[in-house]
Amino acid sequence: MAHDELNRLTATAAADAIRRGDITSEALVGACLDRIGAREAEVGAFIHLDPGHALSAARAADETRRQGLATGPLHGVPVAIKDVIDTADYPTEHGSKAFPGNQPEADAACVAALRAVGAIILGKTVTTELAARCPGKTRNPHNLAHTPGGSSSGSAAAVADAMVPLALGTQTGGSVIRPASFCGIYGFKPTFGLIPRPGVLTQSHSLDTVGVMARSLEDLALAGEVLQGHDGRDASSLSVSAGRLVETARMDWPVEPTFAFVKSPAWAGADPAMHEAFGELAEVLGARLVEVDINLAIEKGIAAARTVQMVELAHHFGPLFDRTPDLVSTQLIEMIEEGRSARAIDYAAALDARQALYSVVEELFYTHGPILTPASPGRAPLGLTTTGDPVFNAFWTYLGVPCVTLPLLEAEGLPIGVQLVGARRDDGRLLRTARLLVEELA
Amino acid sequence: MAHDELNRLTATAAADAIRRGDITSEALVGACLDRIGAREAEVGAFIHLDPGHALSAARAADETRRQGLATGPLHGVPVAIKDVIDTADYPTEHGSKAFPGNQPEADAACVAALRAVGAIILGKTVTTELAARCPGKTRNPHNLAHTPGGSSSGSAAAVADAMVPLALGTQTGGSVIRPASFCGIYGFKPTFGLIPRPGVLTQSHSLDTVGVMARSLEDLALAGEVLQGHDGRDASSLSVSAGRLVETARMDWPVEPTFAFVKSPAWAGADPAMHEAFGELAEVLGARLVEVDINLAIEKGIAAARTVQMVELAHHFGPLFDRTPDLVSTQLIEMIEEGRSARAIDYAAALDARQALYSVVEELFYTHGPILTPASPGRAPLGLTTTGDPVFNAFWTYLGVPCVTLPLLEAEGLPIGVQLVGARRDDGRLLRTARLLVEELA
Repeated sequence: MAHDELNRLTATAAADAIRRGDITSEALVGACLDRIGAREAEVGAFIHLDPGHALSAARAADETRRQGLATGPLHGVPVAIKDVIDTADYPTEHGSKAFPGNQPEADAACVAALRAVGAIILGKTVTTELAARCPGKTRNPHNLAHTPGGSSSGSAAAVADAMVPLALGTQTGGSVIRPASFCGIYGFKPTFGLIPRPGVLTQSHSLDTVGVMARSLEDLALAGEVLQGHDGRDASSLSVSAGRLVETARMDWPVEPTFAFVKSPAWAGADPAMHEAFGELAEVLGARLVEVDINLAIEKGIAAARTVQMVELAHHFGPLFDRTPDLVSTQLIEMIEEGRSARAIDYAAALDARQALYSVVEELFYTHGPILTPASPGRAPLGLTTTGDPVFNAFWTYLGVPCVTLPLLEAEGLPIGVQLVGARRDDGRLLRTARLLVEELA
Repeated sequence: MAHDELNRLTATAAADAIRRGDITSEALVGACLDRIGAREAEVGAFIHLDPGHALSAARAADETRRQGLATGPLHGVPVAIKDVIDTADYPTEHGSKAFPGNQPEADAACVAALRAVGAIILGKTVTTELAARCPGKTRNPHNLAHTPGGSSSGSAAAVADAMVPLALGTQTGGSVIRPASFCGIYGFKPTFGLIPRPGVLTQSHSLDTVGVMARSLEDLALAGEVLQGHDGRDASSLSVSAGRLVETARMDWPVEPTFAFVKSPAWAGADPAMHEAFGELAEVLGARLVEVDINLAIEKGIAAARTVQMVELAHHFGPLFDRTPDLVSTQLIEMIEEGRSARAIDYAAALDARQALYSVVEELFYTHGPILTPASPGRAPLGLTTTGDPVFNAFWTYLGVPCVTLPLLEAEGLPIGVQLVGARRDDGRLLRTARLLVEELA
């Protein structure tokens, strides 16, 4: 394989090739760095990158392998990390003027989990300010005039532009699924609590979820499997894992998957190109796609999700605003003020409604299978002043259900993701159904 | 054993005697009903009682045993249930004018667990209004002019007066430990989440805890062991049990227990008789009791607990007040109004502070052993207009740690409890240490 194609390998393929000795981690990381060198000025995916440091880690991984020492499932594979996730060897500035040069002492639990299986931390990717609304410098690799989405902007753009096979993001509203949809890649927001959060910026502890972006479903399963686990320092960390994601996702299944088609209340006001693309998809799936209207539940859930997010954001970021008001964007100040003005009983009600609303959705999984729904209101909007609307994501994040977006549709050169949503802790089967759908439509 | 002494048996002794065939459940329940008949007019522990129904269940239990069918660890033993806990065969009025004759369709999970091991549900005991502040009719059996404490007033008085060996209560502030202290019995508030709550009135879902009252520590362990378990309908239900409480509590232990003596900020303003009694206890324990000042943490925790309780109480009871304002006491209206006026970020901060405050306390368990602290400000106050102050309980309930009160002290004929507090999920060892202390001081 030519050096200038190595950067296009998936994480799974790259790990296999390194394991077999067909390629070195150094060559792979070198190819990724070359791609970044060629494209970063336009795409702007990274905020911290040290090519020498990454190459040195790659050479050490190659040396480990040459010595016949134990290697993990991501041995030698570069991964990019959203800059709200602590890294011991790179600053972590949270996309905020309030954290210039902030250098964590330790890796976040998820970064440590990646390193433990041999991954090379390539660099830190651009995030919106504190994973909220104020965008960073990143552009959409498919059309530089368009937003890549956010808040995991750099991670999505870097994976989409073949700068790195795999990247970590986080989602509190729609910050993994939406940018993955806009950038035409696979995105995975696992069940809430599946991936432990110590060392990840807390914006809204009831919603924040670590997620993964890649160019194949297999890579999402591999990363999810490596990252899952219980961590007593995270009160929301699940004590039971989702099981073997890779094996479950690979399994063949004799029955054609069926889906609950949830248009959601934002459908009517969304991008007409999205309507058209989903119309074509619905025709292909025919009777296996059953349209279900749970708009009332979604409306309630989106309102509750907003209350939860704003209140918890105000709790976590309010003190920062009070200390250094000049270092906080007007967009964030508005969010803090909204959270500070909320009544406690509304927040309590918003948290308490979650279980009842989940019951509404849970019914669908038993009756129809996973939910099929847009990953975003449509194509990436023109311009870089907003990263788009999480209206097709906030409800699912609030429920804590696993979501995956598949780059199956497009219009005028811009991708549109198809989102599948599964039952809590059913991440493996969700990825399997997603694979069967992708194989069928490819 | 004479019939008029059977009602004084502990639950463990009664269960053993029934198992051996020394006594019948009918005789035991009959003795309890006789005691109730003699004393109920003065004590007022019960709100619903059907002697014929209880005797019929007792005869059925005796018949089961005679047929050689399987029996559980509480086979034939009567248990009284606080009237905020659903029972399929007795009304459940929550001590509230808003629920006259309310008849649940099913038993609460904890009642079902008792019946599954053979217990006879004797009747429903008096609670304050909705387990909050407005007292019911119950009097302290040690001195009828004094409060029995609350909100589990009837359960404490019934056990203390030998009307029943075992009773269920609930604690959101100090509603198990305080009345047990005032009535001179053993009370146990297990780790938050250990006993599932479906079918129990929700006042404050972050605090509400099912607890047990009895006349021996062994009975607390037995009841706790039977009642613990995971229930997916209760979001706070622990997925891992505390283990074998009875066996752990019975185990001998070669090392003399040591204690962290926490006076807490309310010490100075408390009952001088309590100061004196604890002073004598401290002299007996000598160097094994190390006084520790965590007043700052306790003050923060009590304030946070109050915010959490009032907000969640307003969330759960506010709609009832709006529908039927005339059926709600002024005490409860004040609590609802306090909760409704709270800011969401203060509630979020109050919930979020719990883990950090627990860390302060957790240190003590490793360094000194369980915390020894008053169960109440002192003796039961004179009068029936208040059930006393939960100031020595709210912090521990908020932390979710297991608490047990031991009837070791008294002054002028009124009991004073000694409270021991352990680490979360360490209920068995807490009961064991409590037993060793009781044996030593007896």
